[in-house]
Amino acid sequence: MKNTHCIAILGFGVVGGGVADLITANGGEIENYLGVKVQIKRVLDLRDFPDSAFSDRITHNFDDILNDSEIDTVCELMGGSHPAYEYTMAALKAGKNVITSNKEVVANFGDEFLRCAKENGVSYRFEASVGGGIPALSPIINCVRQNKIKEVRGILNGTTNYILTKMFTYGDSFDSALKDAQDKGYAERNPDADILGTDACRKITILTALATDKLVSVNDVHTEGITKIRAEDVKAVEKIGMKIKLLGRCILEEKPQILVAPFLMSEASPLASVNGVFNAIEVVGEPLGNVMFYGPGAGAGATASAVVGDIMQVIASGTHSKAPAFERTDYSPKEAFTDFKCKNYVALPKECADCTERFGKVTLLDSPECAFITELMSEKELEAACEGLNVLSRIRLL
Amino acid sequence: MKNTHCIAILGFGVVGGGVADLITANGGEIENYLGVKVQIKRVLDLRDFPDSAFSDRITHNFDDILNDSEIDTVCELMGGSHPAYEYTMAALKAGKNVITSNKEVVANFGDEFLRCAKENGVSYRFEASVGGGIPALSPIINCVRQNKIKEVRGILNGTTNYILTKMFTYGDSFDSALKDAQDKGYAERNPDADILGTDACRKITILTALATDKLVSVNDVHTEGITKIRAEDVKAVEKIGMKIKLLGRCILEEKPQILVAPFLMSEASPLASVNGVFNAIEVVGEPLGNVMFYGPGAGAGATASAVVGDIMQVIASGTHSKAPAFERTDYSPKEAFTDFKCKNYVALPKECADCTERFGKVTLLDSPECAFITELMSEKELEAACEGLNVLSRIRLL
Repeated sequence: MKNTHCIAILGFGVVGGGVADLITANGGEIENYLGVKVQIKRVLDLRDFPDSAFSDRITHNFDDILNDSEIDTVCELMGGSHPAYEYTMAALKAGKNVITSNKEVVANFGDEFLRCAKENGVSYRFEASVGGGIPALSPIINCVRQNKIKEVRGILNGTTNYILTKMFTYGDSFDSALKDAQDKGYAERNPDADILGTDACRKITILTALATDKLVSVNDVHTEGITKIRAEDVKAVEKIGMKIKLLGRCILEEKPQILVAPFLMSEASPLASVNGVFNAIEVVGEPLGNVMFYGPGAGAGATASAVVGDIMQVIASGTHSKAPAFERTDYSPKEAFTDFKCKNYVALPKECADCTERFGKVTLLDSPECAFITELMSEKELEAACEGLNVLSRIRLL
Repeated sequence: MKNTHCIAILGFGVVGGGVADLITANGGEIENYLGVKVQIKRVLDLRDFPDSAFSDRITHNFDDILNDSEIDTVCELMGGSHPAYEYTMAALKAGKNVITSNKEVVANFGDEFLRCAKENGVSYRFEASVGGGIPALSPIINCVRQNKIKEVRGILNGTTNYILTKMFTYGDSFDSALKDAQDKGYAERNPDADILGTDACRKITILTALATDKLVSVNDVHTEGITKIRAEDVKAVEKIGMKIKLLGRCILEEKPQILVAPFLMSEASPLASVNGVFNAIEVVGEPLGNVMFYGPGAGAGATASAVVGDIMQVIASGTHSKAPAFERTDYSPKEAFTDFKCKNYVALPKECADCTERFGKVTLLDSPECAFITELMSEKELEAACEGLNVLSRIRLL
């Protein structure tokens, strides 16, 4: 084993800076543990950083990294699909390991990257792309696949979990909770990727591929955000001891269901106690039962921990550790979704005359609106029942 | 890579049977995932199992396993220190990987086994020894050591967590909750190893070694059980939104504190929502923050999942994955324990006249007893304050 493992960082933003800080601060710990020093040799960014300790290593030209044979591992921390895709492929083909925190590029091209890494005898790793600092992907790859996996689900987006926690703790409206999240820097000025579920969709696509080896297209995943959740819904459901969480779910039935949507769950459910910007990923397997991985889903330090953890695994095991193999599939879970069955919370403006006829047996909730919980109904059945009604809200139950 | 990986099972009890069942039921999943078939070649037990599907592979003689060059991996699932120690050493020296669920033998001899494994070019793995089916050891080894680890703590014993959950949910006394746990098969007829904290002590010793590379003696760890927790304590503390959990803690200060004791914590703490027989292990690192691994801490299926997960990692990575190195230390955390500082819940029979003088500023609780929470006090200080008093109860705060 070499005594020094040289890396390059692509993108010197929050995550890239966090990785540099971690390696600077904890380099001693890393070297003690592995007997190998991690050295940052190059940092690619459009900007200059004259005041940074890394100013002498900044480059604006990716070729400086690609052609440097001393660089073992490239950390792609830029985000977005391009040029992340091109840089990743080029680095892998040049025999460099690639590590990323970029869920978009993993969800879109993970199959290609993993294949290319294998062909070139290097590693492609992406622990930081889902669940921030939580070690979840590595245990799914290494520790649970001897089970029959029934479901992988999780609270995969800290921004929306913060908003929902605020709505439950303070009775905030969605708009007011979103504004608070923006003020605190937990939500971006354009929050769509978070609040519409796009971010969670990319992550459940990645988790699905880890659990099944099949990579579905993000466009084939039914994706709902949290913009329709009202303070009235929160009031009605907290009286019966329930919480609302935006979940990504991959349910491995005969026709797998993969979706992102808000779900109602009992306060006693492990996922229900995941609050604020924290994330959690739950795996249900046979005979294992339910295991959950919990922790900070974002933030420079946490995400850097996951990136550097991947560097350490590359150093310790290289290509000798089990690498996932994603096979692209044209299976569209969206098509199976009309058969998805669950109980539902429904809120209507006033007593619905033919409620029982439409929805079957329901449990009425204590609410100024006509709010109730249905028995199990398929999406198709629920849609038919709602036909022509002014539905104020509808949330599925876990 | 060979197409078949042959294993032997030592001990055909609950865990051994669970491993055989898992490999039988999910052999297809395992082979699909790794491209290698796991085959159970021998099962060592004192008993015969004429009706078992494995009856033809039962042996009463360990040499049948030791001398079988086809056997790659030995799963020591017997429990206890002897002959587990002797069989493990012999197997490692014979060039066989050893995997165990036996926390006693890991806590007592883990350093020796890991050294011997390294010398013989094989693996020694023990994921199932802590936290049952929860993948926690593997992520601690592989995913967090780039952090400055501040603390590792956990609910490490399902029996005591079940008893405490029962006391909180139903107001049961300790004795009645213990009886219920025994009736349900969660506690043994002789429950001492669980309720006195011995089991949790072994596990925190193992976790400490994974986080620090130092193996302390279990006799050097301050260990308290839950036998002194009273229904009156539960009543007093649940009014202020707190729960009691038996925790193993390894706090990495200048003088590391390693202990097992019941702790009071806010209901909002992630560990507080771990109920029943579930376990959870929390790691606090810098810059990572807090991550938690949650799941079933015992049971045939969950424990078997961890054992077979280790087999799969041996197949996938062998000795190319990072192996922990435990170095035995004569550091005694017990000696540092008098300096351990925390807030404390204290219950006395009636208004204590010189309470403030003895305990400093305290927060009185709503209780028929004289119950209060102190400010931060060291063990030494608290002991001095309690001198001569009839202390009904004293529980530390997390």
